[in-house]
Amino acid sequence: MKNPFAKTIDINSDLGESFGAWRMGNDAALLAIVSSANIACGFHGGDPDIMRGTVALAVEHDVAIGAHVSLPDLQGFGRREMAVTPNETYALTLYQVGALHGFAQAAGARLHHVKPHGALYNMAARDAKLAAAIARAVHDFDPSLYLFGLANSALIDAGRAAGIPVVAEAFADRRYRSDGTLQSRREPDAVIQESDEAIAQAMAMVREGQVRAVDGSIVGLQADTLCVHGDGAHAVDFARQLRAALQAADIGIASPHQTEKRT
Amino acid sequence: MKNPFAKTIDINSDLGESFGAWRMGNDAALLAIVSSANIACGFHGGDPDIMRGTVALAVEHDVAIGAHVSLPDLQGFGRREMAVTPNETYALTLYQVGALHGFAQAAGARLHHVKPHGALYNMAARDAKLAAAIARAVHDFDPSLYLFGLANSALIDAGRAAGIPVVAEAFADRRYRSDGTLQSRREPDAVIQESDEAIAQAMAMVREGQVRAVDGSIVGLQADTLCVHGDGAHAVDFARQLRAALQAADIGIASPHQTEKRT
Amino acid sequence: MKNPFAKTIDINSDLGESFGAWRMGNDAALLAIVSSANIACGFHGGDPDIMRGTVALAVEHDVAIGAHVSLPDLQGFGRREMAVTPNETYALTLYQVGALHGFAQAAGARLHHVKPHGALYNMAARDAKLAAAIARAVHDFDPSLYLFGLANSALIDAGRAAGIPVVAEAFADRRYRSDGTLQSRREPDAVIQESDEAIAQAMAMVREGQVRAVDGSIVGLQADTLCVHGDGAHAVDFARQLRAALQAADIGIASPHQTEKRT
Amino acid sequence: MKNPFAKTIDINSDLGESFGAWRMGNDAALLAIVSSANIACGFHGGDPDIMRGTVALAVEHDVAIGAHVSLPDLQGFGRREMAVTPNETYALTLYQVGALHGFAQAAGARLHHVKPHGALYNMAARDAKLAAAIARAVHDFDPSLYLFGLANSALIDAGRAAGIPVVAEAFADRRYRSDGTLQSRREPDAVIQESDEAIAQAMAMVREGQVRAVDGSIVGLQADTLCVHGDGAHAVDFARQLRAALQAADIGIASPHQTEKRT
Repeated sequence: MKNPFAKTIDINSDLGESFGAWRMGNDAALLAIVSSANIACGFHGGDPDIMRGTVALAVEHDVAIGAHVSLPDLQGFGRREMAVTPNETYALTLYQVGALHGFAQAAGARLHHVKPHGALYNMAARDAKLAAAIARAVHDFDPSLYLFGLANSALIDAGRAAGIPVVAEAFADRRYRSDGTLQSRREPDAVIQESDEAIAQAMAMVREGQVRAVDGSIVGLQADTLCVHGDGAHAVDFARQLRAALQAADIGIASPHQTEKRT
Repeated sequence: MKNPFAKTIDINSDLGESFGAWRMGNDAALLAIVSSANIACGFHGGDPDIMRGTVALAVEHDVAIGAHVSLPDLQGFGRREMAVTPNETYALTLYQVGALHGFAQAAGARLHHVKPHGALYNMAARDAKLAAAIARAVHDFDPSLYLFGLANSALIDAGRAAGIPVVAEAFADRRYRSDGTLQSRREPDAVIQESDEAIAQAMAMVREGQVRAVDGSIVGLQADTLCVHGDGAHAVDFARQLRAALQAADIGIASPHQTEKRT
Repeated sequence: MKNPFAKTIDINSDLGESFGAWRMGNDAALLAIVSSANIACGFHGGDPDIMRGTVALAVEHDVAIGAHVSLPDLQGFGRREMAVTPNETYALTLYQVGALHGFAQAAGARLHHVKPHGALYNMAARDAKLAAAIARAVHDFDPSLYLFGLANSALIDAGRAAGIPVVAEAFADRRYRSDGTLQSRREPDAVIQESDEAIAQAMAMVREGQVRAVDGSIVGLQADTLCVHGDGAHAVDFARQLRAALQAADIGIASPHQTEKRT
Repeated sequence: MKNPFAKTIDINSDLGESFGAWRMGNDAALLAIVSSANIACGFHGGDPDIMRGTVALAVEHDVAIGAHVSLPDLQGFGRREMAVTPNETYALTLYQVGALHGFAQAAGARLHHVKPHGALYNMAARDAKLAAAIARAVHDFDPSLYLFGLANSALIDAGRAAGIPVVAEAFADRRYRSDGTLQSRREPDAVIQESDEAIAQAMAMVREGQVRAVDGSIVGLQADTLCVHGDGAHAVDFARQLRAALQAADIGIASPHQTEKRT
């Protein structure tokens, strides 16, 4: 099948973050926008019932299913860094990837990618040993799975070294430093507040593979996937605007797997 | 390859029940005796690190790897009955089977069977709806997996109805009622204390497919696997004696999978 | 100080049921309505941060602080019955009461009551041994604490037998059987849908100590406290109407402790 | 009552570290040696049943009861550092102190001290803000509780600043640096292997308030309590030898509370 778009980009979002009696997120709205779903695996959110339901919804919307693996910290929602060893990281990744695979398999679907969540995402972006442990776990489970990680980070390097396909993640609404890393959230200019500016940044990243850093310099940045959020009506609106802007520019929205199938 | 034994039987044991800094069981000794290992999946014992290590040990000893799925009750070691629904049971089974599969897959091994643990084992033996939920989860994950359950129980019936291979479990050292169910542990004669008597019962179950019930009647009982324990030096000694007695009677010790490969 | 009302009744509600990153309930609205707060203690909801904040809010509103003790089942929100022993029940009650006392103490407040939550509430209403274990735990911690339980239940009996003050709970919007117990939720007429009817029932319970059962008979029912909920805007509206109706009938709203202080 | 010893020192140990079906430690042997017990509160070990039993044993041996508060990390036994905020630290301390107080109260005993465990102990030794949060939680619960912390650490400073009594902990078998802090476990000479040398170091710390650092210099060190362990037969033997050596030198073994009662 011929790809009707000149170029494609993946849009991913974190889903299935409810737990037990507690609801979180706007999964139904996001599933109509994104091409890849990062599904919580019980360590920071999600439980077996939630995971089953989220996988079913993703299958229904033909959205690619990914394991959103986390440090074991339900109370802290996986956002507190913990001093885990590479061996512990390898094992907790494999456990969560396997658990989500169980639901995908039973639903007649396939696991598509793995993305570390929260504190683990940040730790894997800068710590080569943890990054290597995650990449090795993904490789040992299934070397055809995509590894999602921050563009220009240690995790992307580790995925490449492990011989698995990597997907570099970029953020429409975060500012970058001249070395291609994210501006710290402690800085006042870390987040782009204006939707127009964020969409313009996304366009430059997707079309030209570059972003203007906080010091004004132009930085090269591979953007294979853009991350959108569902907390608050504004977030979903922005995700919709971003999707529409991309499509208006003749850029298709598709998961890495769908892109590969097309080409 | 020709089976050198006239008949074979599986011996299974519960392994990988340590958790975090806590050790439990005698896995090394049991792995030299049993043909099937039921490995805890983190809900009553086991954690990602323990699971990884236990799978590696089982692979090393060529022992069949099974998921020992439990109610979510770490403090109660999965021994306290909980009012879970069939849907919850389906999901928690799939979660744990998938998680253990992750480690088997990464170790280059295959998952072989699923056995419910503790309170879930007992509930599934008598509650047809929970039994059906477990059988369906196993089927939906991989219909070639063996489902281990108490001989003459609702779980064995459910597995058959779901079209998956079932393995009826018998106990050398437990007394039976005339309907083929286990004598309640509340009765003083529930457990056979003498090793010789227990071994004689196991022999009758394996060779003749029958057991003498507490009322003296002879009951038919399919015994595909015998369960042995590792708590205390005596338990391991008994397991060794049982294995030796079976082999002396020209009965081979092999997992269901190995038996099938042979025939 | 003279009590300006001819009669007083307590209104209680379950609060502090958020957990980690997940929000639940309408605590701010309810604290303006109720006189007693049952605060989750981490076993079905609540965590140390939430408990601290909820205690602070209750103190601010001069609402009596109670420990809402639960079975250990965060995923199931404490609503799934578990086969806990009386000894386990004693210990888990003491643990949670102590934990909440920690926050009350640090806030310069006093613990006022204990109420079992969800499945434990139902189990304690009919199982005399579990009820006695809870009553004993409350007594051993502080025999001046009030024990909240279903009117006409085993828990109220157990509290009396243990020599601690009991508070019989009645429900404005639930129908009763002729033996004074609640109509099962499995029956279509278990819940009163009309606000007016529910308020009329509450009035009869508070003023006359009786309720009309589903078979039309009149049953005696001690109603020391009425339970209201905050899930949904309607629930809070109903709670406000109930409060207004009681006050219009010259019935004061006060916690048992406040009532005792007045008289 | 006149103190028969010229001087007294406390000996403390970590107890009640079993969890659910898992046993850990040698509590019975240690309770005959120590004067203070640091009892796990469910976050790294211990559960309500274990806590109740451990408090009962401590009361029986007239050993002072302390809350051994930990980060919430059961799998990691509280030994993995986590990025908790001071507010989270305050709340988790209060929760655990309250929970253990529940059991002490029900047993007719009093809580005597609080000691952070594992990673929290190390973090509180060097991070003034976390140390202040712990000291404030102890103060707000009961300003007469003793706070145990590493001698010369931020936690001791924080306890003094909060106006609560502090107990400086020293280690017979660890080597010290010239600034009074512990030699890192990453250095080969971190631990003293010879019992005689460890006992000699303890004697110097207790009698002269000083220790010879790894660079040969003599460092002042307040040693109010010595920590002993129960893992392995050797550890208990060493604890016994240490106790005997202290008594032979006319030094009494008593908890801070007992010491205060005497003088």
